[in-house]
Amino acid sequence: MISVVILGAGNVATHLFQAIQKTENTRVLQWYNRHIDAIKTYGQDVDITDNLYDIKEADLYILAISDDAIKSFSSSLPFENRLVVHTSGCVNIHDLDKKHKRGVFYPLQSFSKKAKMDFAHVPICIEALESEDYHFLKKLARSFGSPTKKVNSDQRKVLHLAAVYVNNFTNQLYRLAHEITESQSAEFDLLKPLILETAKKVQDISPYMAQTGPAKRGDKKTINNHLELLQSEHHKDVYNLLTKSIQITHGRKKL
Amino acid sequence: MISVVILGAGNVATHLFQAIQKTENTRVLQWYNRHIDAIKTYGQDVDITDNLYDIKEADLYILAISDDAIKSFSSSLPFENRLVVHTSGCVNIHDLDKKHKRGVFYPLQSFSKKAKMDFAHVPICIEALESEDYHFLKKLARSFGSPTKKVNSDQRKVLHLAAVYVNNFTNQLYRLAHEITESQSAEFDLLKPLILETAKKVQDISPYMAQTGPAKRGDKKTINNHLELLQSEHHKDVYNLLTKSIQITHGRKKL
Repeated sequence: MISVVILGAGNVATHLFQAIQKTENTRVLQWYNRHIDAIKTYGQDVDITDNLYDIKEADLYILAISDDAIKSFSSSLPFENRLVVHTSGCVNIHDLDKKHKRGVFYPLQSFSKKAKMDFAHVPICIEALESEDYHFLKKLARSFGSPTKKVNSDQRKVLHLAAVYVNNFTNQLYRLAHEITESQSAEFDLLKPLILETAKKVQDISPYMAQTGPAKRGDKKTINNHLELLQSEHHKDVYNLLTKSIQITHGRKKL
Repeated sequence: MISVVILGAGNVATHLFQAIQKTENTRVLQWYNRHIDAIKTYGQDVDITDNLYDIKEADLYILAISDDAIKSFSSSLPFENRLVVHTSGCVNIHDLDKKHKRGVFYPLQSFSKKAKMDFAHVPICIEALESEDYHFLKKLARSFGSPTKKVNSDQRKVLHLAAVYVNNFTNQLYRLAHEITESQSAEFDLLKPLILETAKKVQDISPYMAQTGPAKRGDKKTINNHLELLQSEHHKDVYNLLTKSIQITHGRKKL
């Protein structure tokens, strides 16, 4: 039986707790948070603590805490030479105190507190200083059904950055579409199947191949009609920049 | 039995042909295209023609042709007082020649020639000048399982515009993420589950509520790290504008 201590109480901590508890060969031995209230509801299922000095000996310590806290918190842990990993996309593995065996266990997915997550759709980016630890972390991810990938700190930072484009920025385009439709008496809900289809399409073909529309075609008439229809200067700025971006990609404009 | 003539040979025409042929109470009586070669492979299943004067009498004529051609093509049809609809997002219903009974049958979805489409996920935006024709078109859409919505020409134009944001522009963000990852030795494929999850999330909650990330949090440190990591000025322009956009939406920046 593999034993894990989770440290932190955010979305990643909570989802990892639930995923690990469902496995057969791994269990969460203890859950630490500096504010015990945040994890009190789990007190019946697992040993909880807010005292660093009560932390038990385990095979793995998962720091699912804010990026800025990782360095100093890892130093403050009152033990050494045990495997400690963080779950951040943009913190270097060497930010963990070198008294520990160190690793990174970064789930590349967007977690909501409420929505359940199927870990089969959560790729885990794994990094470790020792090969033995890498294989241990890989086994853990596999135990709850996640695909894994060996990713070093530089690659992980790039993935974290690219994730902003496909998650935060994409979601903002949905938001702008929401603003545009609602302000002109059209119904945003009608766009939802298209939103899903657009995401599904690039599961199989490249975004380059998947592109369609007036910008790619160089259809100036439609582009001008769209710009006339837009009531907000900001919406126009986004329209113009992304139209230009598509035209750079598809050879209609030079960089 | 409802009889339909399809005119045009693009993706929309082909998908509508396949959808209609599967229904029990509607059939494609004839398929017209000015270049017969484009529809020759369907010649065994349906009567095909490239001659306007051979077009048969039917309950409905679906013009699935390019936007610019709709007006003149509808005038050139050698019959009148029959129900003629176009399938365009941005052409007014009144662009159809007034000798016809007129309507619009706009499938709000992105069709690929190859990929099969489940019409249960294709909302049909319907407009008609006569109530009788509206109900007829609604029944047709329902017969192949599509949800329908009464949408006038102004609303349809706005939906067509908003579709560019959630489809073309979103796909371009996937493309930029592809460029960023591949140019820095990271793997775009790892982002695919996140792309899908981002689209799924807004099926149930609003894009406003779904937003997360450094721009929304006002996390300047991460934003600056990301900007430093970006190697292309164009990628930075997109990063800056969409970060600003998120901050306008979430009250961190004024318009």
